[in-house]
Amino acid sequence: MRLEEKVRGASHREVVDRLGAFFGAKSVVLIGATDRSPWSIWTHANLRQYSPNVTVHVVHPHHDQVHGQQVLKSLNALDEPVDLAYVMVPTSAVLEVMNEVADAGITNVVILTAGFGEAGPEGAELEAQLVDLAHARGLTVLGPNGNGFINAAGGLTPYGLLITPPLDVGPVGIVLQSGGLASAVLAGAQARGVGLSLLVSTGNEALTSASDIMRYLIEDDRTKVIAAFLESIRQPDEFREVAELALAAGKPIVALKTGRTEAGAKAALAHTGALAGDDRVIDAAFRQLGIIRVNSLEELLATAGYLGHHREIRGRRIAAITPSGGACDLLADLASEEKLEFPEFPPETLAELGELLPSFSNPQNPLDVTGYVVMDPTIALKSLGIVANDVVGNYDMVLYTATIPRLEAPNPAPIEQRMDALAEAGKSLDVPLVLQSLISVDLTSYSRKLLGDRGLYLLSGIEPGMRAIGHGARYHDRRDRWLEVGPPTTAPSLEAPVNARGVWPEHLVRGLLEAHGIPVAPARLATSALEAKAFAGEFEEPVAMKVASSALAHKSDIGGVALNVEVDQVTATFDELKKRLAVALPEATLDGVLVGPMRTGGIELLVGVVTDPTWGKVLSLGLGGVWVEVLGDVALRVLPVGPEEITTMLGELRGAALLSGARGTRPVDMDRLVAVVYQIAQLAEGLGEALDTLEVNPLRVEGDCIEVLDALAVWRSEGDSK
Amino acid sequence: MRLEEKVRGASHREVVDRLGAFFGAKSVVLIGATDRSPWSIWTHANLRQYSPNVTVHVVHPHHDQVHGQQVLKSLNALDEPVDLAYVMVPTSAVLEVMNEVADAGITNVVILTAGFGEAGPEGAELEAQLVDLAHARGLTVLGPNGNGFINAAGGLTPYGLLITPPLDVGPVGIVLQSGGLASAVLAGAQARGVGLSLLVSTGNEALTSASDIMRYLIEDDRTKVIAAFLESIRQPDEFREVAELALAAGKPIVALKTGRTEAGAKAALAHTGALAGDDRVIDAAFRQLGIIRVNSLEELLATAGYLGHHREIRGRRIAAITPSGGACDLLADLASEEKLEFPEFPPETLAELGELLPSFSNPQNPLDVTGYVVMDPTIALKSLGIVANDVVGNYDMVLYTATIPRLEAPNPAPIEQRMDALAEAGKSLDVPLVLQSLISVDLTSYSRKLLGDRGLYLLSGIEPGMRAIGHGARYHDRRDRWLEVGPPTTAPSLEAPVNARGVWPEHLVRGLLEAHGIPVAPARLATSALEAKAFAGEFEEPVAMKVASSALAHKSDIGGVALNVEVDQVTATFDELKKRLAVALPEATLDGVLVGPMRTGGIELLVGVVTDPTWGKVLSLGLGGVWVEVLGDVALRVLPVGPEEITTMLGELRGAALLSGARGTRPVDMDRLVAVVYQIAQLAEGLGEALDTLEVNPLRVEGDCIEVLDALAVWRSEGDSK
Repeated sequence: MRLEEKVRGASHREVVDRLGAFFGAKSVVLIGATDRSPWSIWTHANLRQYSPNVTVHVVHPHHDQVHGQQVLKSLNALDEPVDLAYVMVPTSAVLEVMNEVADAGITNVVILTAGFGEAGPEGAELEAQLVDLAHARGLTVLGPNGNGFINAAGGLTPYGLLITPPLDVGPVGIVLQSGGLASAVLAGAQARGVGLSLLVSTGNEALTSASDIMRYLIEDDRTKVIAAFLESIRQPDEFREVAELALAAGKPIVALKTGRTEAGAKAALAHTGALAGDDRVIDAAFRQLGIIRVNSLEELLATAGYLGHHREIRGRRIAAITPSGGACDLLADLASEEKLEFPEFPPETLAELGELLPSFSNPQNPLDVTGYVVMDPTIALKSLGIVANDVVGNYDMVLYTATIPRLEAPNPAPIEQRMDALAEAGKSLDVPLVLQSLISVDLTSYSRKLLGDRGLYLLSGIEPGMRAIGHGARYHDRRDRWLEVGPPTTAPSLEAPVNARGVWPEHLVRGLLEAHGIPVAPARLATSALEAKAFAGEFEEPVAMKVASSALAHKSDIGGVALNVEVDQVTATFDELKKRLAVALPEATLDGVLVGPMRTGGIELLVGVVTDPTWGKVLSLGLGGVWVEVLGDVALRVLPVGPEEITTMLGELRGAALLSGARGTRPVDMDRLVAVVYQIAQLAEGLGEALDTLEVNPLRVEGDCIEVLDALAVWRSEGDSK
Repeated sequence: MRLEEKVRGASHREVVDRLGAFFGAKSVVLIGATDRSPWSIWTHANLRQYSPNVTVHVVHPHHDQVHGQQVLKSLNALDEPVDLAYVMVPTSAVLEVMNEVADAGITNVVILTAGFGEAGPEGAELEAQLVDLAHARGLTVLGPNGNGFINAAGGLTPYGLLITPPLDVGPVGIVLQSGGLASAVLAGAQARGVGLSLLVSTGNEALTSASDIMRYLIEDDRTKVIAAFLESIRQPDEFREVAELALAAGKPIVALKTGRTEAGAKAALAHTGALAGDDRVIDAAFRQLGIIRVNSLEELLATAGYLGHHREIRGRRIAAITPSGGACDLLADLASEEKLEFPEFPPETLAELGELLPSFSNPQNPLDVTGYVVMDPTIALKSLGIVANDVVGNYDMVLYTATIPRLEAPNPAPIEQRMDALAEAGKSLDVPLVLQSLISVDLTSYSRKLLGDRGLYLLSGIEPGMRAIGHGARYHDRRDRWLEVGPPTTAPSLEAPVNARGVWPEHLVRGLLEAHGIPVAPARLATSALEAKAFAGEFEEPVAMKVASSALAHKSDIGGVALNVEVDQVTATFDELKKRLAVALPEATLDGVLVGPMRTGGIELLVGVVTDPTWGKVLSLGLGGVWVEVLGDVALRVLPVGPEEITTMLGELRGAALLSGARGTRPVDMDRLVAVVYQIAQLAEGLGEALDTLEVNPLRVEGDCIEVLDALAVWRSEGDSK
């Protein structure tokens, strides 16, 4: 509905309602059904097995019997209204079939067929026709070139690859821009006991985008968390709106976004740390939108599964109970990396644990109940009981290593009773109980049943589990802050200067900055040596002199900067700078020479705003010199950002300690610094489309003295060619 | 055999032979066998199920029948020699039983019983007695407080926790210092089809250490790779020797070492980047020894499994064939992180792939054969055939996404034929074929059989797989270099100076450095203002002056350094410095004032050697200033290191670019720099136990001018208290 929405101005609510009808269909017709196609066989088998309350029709012009079912020769033969068409006909027949579908009064269509936008210019043209047709006939279309969807919670599974049982229903909604990975993710979810509400493979997204699916999932009560595999974000504004809706609703979006390596090498005129298309911009945008970015399909599932079952957990203080000292060591290492905490047990807890556990134990958090659990399996649960007494105010969760039997024992009663007791303990605990296994292995049908019957979820493996818990803690921090501060306000629109073309060097940008209240180090533009000498007299000796020409972006490239100039050398220096410009750029006009006081000491910052092709204006902030040039140490944010976020950015810099006075520097007035950076960001944002890049480099800060020493702007309109 | 080895001077060969007899036992007696202990039940059941050719006796003084078997009342009742005793008696009875074991002529003992060194001082005393007894009676002992072992390849499984089938035999030898995690690792290995040669849980390591087990595994033909879970490395020298043996044998050691967070906070007198006990020292030591360090049990198994089956893969150039564009994107992202490469396909390959694949495909490396593989499952194998033609010289491996069916189809023949074809393709391929699944899920019994029958191994999941491949590539780089360069030679021993006590400030260390040929910036120690003035005249104006007192480690702390002193101020400065020392440290004797030329410009390095409690002398190397103080950017190595490794260290620094002339600095003479750092390292190493710390900070480098500007030494003997 991406394009559709533009055309019709569909609101969030409209999209959700239409997709609600789409995913809630009660009857499906498979068009192009044939026993020769695995897709057809599997889609039909999936519907048979997992969609018991859905009527399935099959249509094919030349068959009588397909998948053991009577075939309709055409849609005309339908004797009742049908909610959803699943189209598997050859590419060339799709448009015609779409018209027939519309004629038959069907408004929802899944197109499995490939050969559209992904297949070169011809396919793209066909896809454009498809979009027009869908708009004209009022069709809601998923695909083309997508596997369809699995509405596990609603019992509707028009999906083109075989779904191996069991299909667990649960809190995770999944949307994928890769059909090839959809079944792998499904298998992974099943293996880990991650239950699904809905899984959608969006294909080419001709009309329904991943963002549209997320809109639906945000409003879907059965979905608690959204897992997404994303290859590209085509409509960032819409994506941003959806992410903010999810944040407001408290439904975490966990995303695996590929293409990390694609850009990076793109050259930029400014030195600004962020390059357009840089993957770090996506990182920044995701963080700003509260989206949890993961690096693997395994992490996607572990994180979504954890959050689906435990999204209410706030805070980082964990009480852990394990049967192994080795597990405790691993937990401690991972907690330190994920900034999670194992606060010491209160003295009463320690005393009681000391009485319960064998004499050779060493009670502490995380707790090793020792291998004696083999002789007396109740000590783990008893330890949980003891720890439970003092959780309030001390811990945000209890993490419990649960060894769930993989096979049913000859006498299953003791184990089932212990599982019952564990479930009871979880219910009566004042903080969430998180069960975790020692290593990632699949649930067996028996362990799945032991857990499922009791509404329990098992975090699979120590490391994947702790990473997921870390993601959860960071998500809540960001969300809480977002709720508190609210979304950043957009900067007021500003008119671009009338001569805003090409590259503006310092002497042109200074006025723009000053006009918007941004402090700039004093300097005057002298147009003659005599004037330069007069201006120099206004400042303390020695002065700095910089050649100024609209044709020259980087003064120092031609030796156009003279530092520590004594007054009696000003005249000669003026002439020298003039000569250097004439030699280096014979065509360039000398606009003058900037004369200003020397500035030394303090810390230099780079404040840049560039335009990312996807996300628009991006602010990058870093310490100057080696920090940016050698280390690439910059913090990035997509604009708009508020002052709070700028404070956070400064804190993220590896050299942040320098700002607070490390190495004997004067501590910086942070409020003032944040205010100046905010002004620069507001200016760049306000100038909108007209501005490509604004770079202040350096912004010199020394205590409460903060001023621009040099700056550059690049406008979208080309400069005059004179 | 840790202690034993010291006592008896056992060689590597002796240890291997003794453990060979230990793990190769043909008869076992379970002492303390009882139906009331799960350990006993499970050990017996394991032996019954997985040790078909091993005779099992059970001994208990008060039972007649245990585990359905006739009980011997004591070892005296044995009517044949027995190879191995498995001891499960109460802690207090262990020593007595050990004597009975020895009396019965049994030399190999597993002690499951806990309550020894891990249980406080009393237990430690008992363990010491156990060690003495074992030495006196010539016993080889595994444990106490360990689960025993699983010799999967040899069919001997005296292991205290139930082994769920299947027990796959394979190339991975596992040693664990955590009994609690042993069964988790076993389950994880089974789930992933990682076959085991031997798994050993070492318990308290009273007599047999993890290093001993590794010695055995290095010599064990069935073991191709060693996976280790380590909590502590008690005998670093032995560990190092074993690691080098493994490196020589080409058997990778993959290690999960916990305790990453434990130290770190320990204060140090020097500013040197490495803190004693720092986890980064372990990182460095492991890298130097070619040990692959991993962060999770999952990564341990993925890496060991991959290397066990593919340890011959050298190089980073991968040709990949997948059924999914999403998988290609993930592979590309991960390759970039792991520094692996997907070189473009040769033109002929591209042309042939273009003919084979559907028109909407876009052949490139990694290759997406497209979802059309559903209609024609042969296109993936055909693509492999095409790619195979041009692998030599272009690629080091072919990575092939294999979707292995989880359940047997009604007609399994087509799938089995494709699996046969895949196995054949692998055999005829000129580079290794690596099979990979799209996501980590357990093998089913059917998929296990499909693979196992054909000798195939499946790398589980895209991300875990690519990490494993990355580990493999780095391992081979390090090993190849180690084989080429050889182990670093030990520095010649040096006599410590007679007055080597306490802390030596600069003026004492200078002579030591100079005596060993290390270039030190010129300076003379003036004992009077007059002398200072005379010395100052020897250098160009201005000079630097630094107060010198044996009682003062850090001159600048008391303002004891004066820079840019003009000759006419030297006298006054001498007096001022003298006064400052008297005020700050009234008890301190002024040894004089160092007078030398001013040095500015260039790059400052920190070269420090500290003593780590486990690993001994550790060299840390970093750029000075913010690089070390704010960023902690240092490269670490355990000594000895050769010059090649010092070159690598310099390259690892984040600010390495500065050395080669970034930001306009003069490129450094790297050979000369490496030589000086090597001299410093050799000196510190040669001084041996007497020296605690030697820190050169800064070492100033400018082009080919490299000299020590300041230095500090800390000796092990306390300084005089005067």
